[in-house]
Amino acid sequence: MLDSALNFARNNRQSHLSGLCDWLRIPSISTQPEHASDVRAAAEFAAHYLRDMGMSKVEIRETKGHPVIYAEWLNLQPGTFNLPTLLIYGHFDVQPTDPDEEWTRPPFEPVIEGDNLYARGASDDKGQAFAVLAALESYFNAGGKLPVNVKVLLEGEEEVTSPNLFPYIREHVDELKADAILIADQDMLDPQHPVIMWGVRGNLYTEIEVRGPAHDLHSGTFGGAVDNPFNVLVHLLARLQDEKTRKVLIPNFYDKVEELYEEERALISQAPINDQVGLYLTGASALGGEEGYPLAERVSVRPTLEIHGIAGGFTGEGSKTVIPAKATAKVSMRLVPNQDPEEVFESLKSFLESICPETVKLDVRIIGRAHAVKIDYKSPEVQAAANAYEQGFGYKPIYLRGGGSLPIVDEMIKALSVPDRDIPVVMIGFGLPDDRTHAPNEKFYIPNFYHGIETVIHYLEIFKNI
Amino acid sequence: MLDSALNFARNNRQSHLSGLCDWLRIPSISTQPEHASDVRAAAEFAAHYLRDMGMSKVEIRETKGHPVIYAEWLNLQPGTFNLPTLLIYGHFDVQPTDPDEEWTRPPFEPVIEGDNLYARGASDDKGQAFAVLAALESYFNAGGKLPVNVKVLLEGEEEVTSPNLFPYIREHVDELKADAILIADQDMLDPQHPVIMWGVRGNLYTEIEVRGPAHDLHSGTFGGAVDNPFNVLVHLLARLQDEKTRKVLIPNFYDKVEELYEEERALISQAPINDQVGLYLTGASALGGEEGYPLAERVSVRPTLEIHGIAGGFTGEGSKTVIPAKATAKVSMRLVPNQDPEEVFESLKSFLESICPETVKLDVRIIGRAHAVKIDYKSPEVQAAANAYEQGFGYKPIYLRGGGSLPIVDEMIKALSVPDRDIPVVMIGFGLPDDRTHAPNEKFYIPNFYHGIETVIHYLEIFKNI
Repeated sequence: MLDSALNFARNNRQSHLSGLCDWLRIPSISTQPEHASDVRAAAEFAAHYLRDMGMSKVEIRETKGHPVIYAEWLNLQPGTFNLPTLLIYGHFDVQPTDPDEEWTRPPFEPVIEGDNLYARGASDDKGQAFAVLAALESYFNAGGKLPVNVKVLLEGEEEVTSPNLFPYIREHVDELKADAILIADQDMLDPQHPVIMWGVRGNLYTEIEVRGPAHDLHSGTFGGAVDNPFNVLVHLLARLQDEKTRKVLIPNFYDKVEELYEEERALISQAPINDQVGLYLTGASALGGEEGYPLAERVSVRPTLEIHGIAGGFTGEGSKTVIPAKATAKVSMRLVPNQDPEEVFESLKSFLESICPETVKLDVRIIGRAHAVKIDYKSPEVQAAANAYEQGFGYKPIYLRGGGSLPIVDEMIKALSVPDRDIPVVMIGFGLPDDRTHAPNEKFYIPNFYHGIETVIHYLEIFKNI
Repeated sequence: MLDSALNFARNNRQSHLSGLCDWLRIPSISTQPEHASDVRAAAEFAAHYLRDMGMSKVEIRETKGHPVIYAEWLNLQPGTFNLPTLLIYGHFDVQPTDPDEEWTRPPFEPVIEGDNLYARGASDDKGQAFAVLAALESYFNAGGKLPVNVKVLLEGEEEVTSPNLFPYIREHVDELKADAILIADQDMLDPQHPVIMWGVRGNLYTEIEVRGPAHDLHSGTFGGAVDNPFNVLVHLLARLQDEKTRKVLIPNFYDKVEELYEEERALISQAPINDQVGLYLTGASALGGEEGYPLAERVSVRPTLEIHGIAGGFTGEGSKTVIPAKATAKVSMRLVPNQDPEEVFESLKSFLESICPETVKLDVRIIGRAHAVKIDYKSPEVQAAANAYEQGFGYKPIYLRGGGSLPIVDEMIKALSVPDRDIPVVMIGFGLPDDRTHAPNEKFYIPNFYHGIETVIHYLEIFKNI
């Protein structure tokens, strides 16, 4: 059945590409209310495709926001009930298109130029999700069935941090139970380097607000009379991180940070992430970050602290001499496995309260959090993906820990794991670093689309036998 | 002649008030180009008044911006050539009126309610300048001449930092030479507490910019790879001032700061500026500022350092995880006599360069500067004002050093002083702290207008005899 599915996929590349283009024409921008009907249309398009290919149950489920698609095909014939079950996750919403003047092709009229397909969502995530669905379709067309049980969960709010998906998952745990989760929503390093992501960092996003005088004051009349919230805030912020080593100085911050096993360290050191690449990608005059760790570890398995912006006072042209009533900093910390965002927040809050002078009022609040996740890359479900990449692309993957946060991964692990065994989350992807996701002129490298379909076809076959 | 002038002023209060109202009807907002002809009209109004009263020379002089008025009356009759000469400075431009919706009376239709006259410019500075001109007029009407030589310099750009007045003064030094300068453009503490200002602080306004990566980066992907300009900037800023003592830590910052004489300290301690007043006026939960100095000194004779705002990165709603390419702080220092803004700037720049890590690029620049000024409050010219206040208001003045900056004072002293003797600048005023200058519903306390006229009448008489 594998060969028939692969043959179908190879013989129908044109129609798969054409199907993807139809999906891309729907401007399913989840953050813009005027596109709500487009998000729904994109859901209906996918549901129609899933029904047509032969999934036994396909439903569009309402949420408080955009709808979710649930589909399944469970091979319940006698003697086959113990097939493993794969839960596939993807999303059909896209980012806004602004700045529109920078698009050299219209965002929702897909254009093929050479090996690239240009459109908003071409890579993130319609193109990658469609590759997974086309693999399922290839099996149904080749043999009328799938080699394993499959559940599909597609959402329309990923680009707005999935506010309604998490409650949805918690309310549908039984229906979503599976042996592994497959997510294709990431980049390869280049077409010869597929990536298996065996973890993501967590995040704690906070606002630190210092309030001083009841209203803005003139620094001539009142300079020297009160503590300026900015003057206080920079001292507080400077106490959060060592100036030289860039170690975070919040008490107990590193207590639960695990050191890598030698094997893990070796794996990370194999990734082609070196200072030369870092300098090229960032354009910085010199790299920075935590003393004592190589770049590849600093951006993936070490926690960090970043100030994103400081609001308040006067930042316009010229020289207004205001002592502002308040100053607010946005500060986030990337967290690593075992660091609990709530615990870190409590430490941060207590620490700042203990060092803040009584001349001002301090308010520290959370505005976002995500747990880090580490995946057992040696599990058969993940190794199956390595094997499938090798079949589908002709190259062994490299193993990376992701520096960003994917709250959905932790949410799904928490909801769908069974006692004593975390559900394996298999994070693969067919995008490329220059796909310009979230930016103008997003594209998808078409050979990766085809190799992606074949990779998933292989994955299902290998997954059946583990 | 004194009594005749006083009698004239008392008998013509209504017509002086009416004249001021006519001047206030002209919306001479210097910062708004559409009001350029109004600024000129306000100049012509004043020139007309000066000519009518009997000044021997009254000219409207063009500048690159709004015009300047120069007028003089020099008693050159035999035997009187050695009369002292007083240079009077004032301004006829006003601040914009926004927010307009907060005015409960129209800004340019003067309204008298009880003892107050409401209009933009009523206090700052048309009302105070008109009081000085009305005193001159009273002398001319009473006796056909003034008791001393008088030169008048009125400008129309005070509210936009006098860009064309400084070059004008430097080009007209001989014409402007005088024995003292009288400026009525400040507040009393209350109607029973006239104020003599015997100094103002200087200012050094800077921008400190830290540039890191060539473009904004995602803190997930790149957090740990580069030094974040914000993270660096807060460390640099925290190094500028001691967290506890609030001493400025820029090397050599205090080298030229003079300690007060005991007599000066005693004088300042007499001002009713105490912590209770400070808490009331600022609404802060506790006062702050440099350790070891009382509030009255911290806000007037001690230098300060203030951060006014920090630009860059993300400060909107929510949680964008950006490592910004750059971060820029606006930082100003109030300086005291003998501190040279250029020298302080060089110290600041060298210090920051010496502590800035090589992972970022630093740019420190001046965007504004003013020298502090200290006036000899014991000089006969200033003591004459104390005496005149006592005659005009019935109260002895209090002596304050101003915390803000008045660049015009230093400019005039530099241009018009003679070797071995700084020209005395006599800073008086008839405004009140609740006059809402620069804000909606500006007003002038009418009894202060009348007492102000009489104070200036007395001043000229006393000035003649010193």
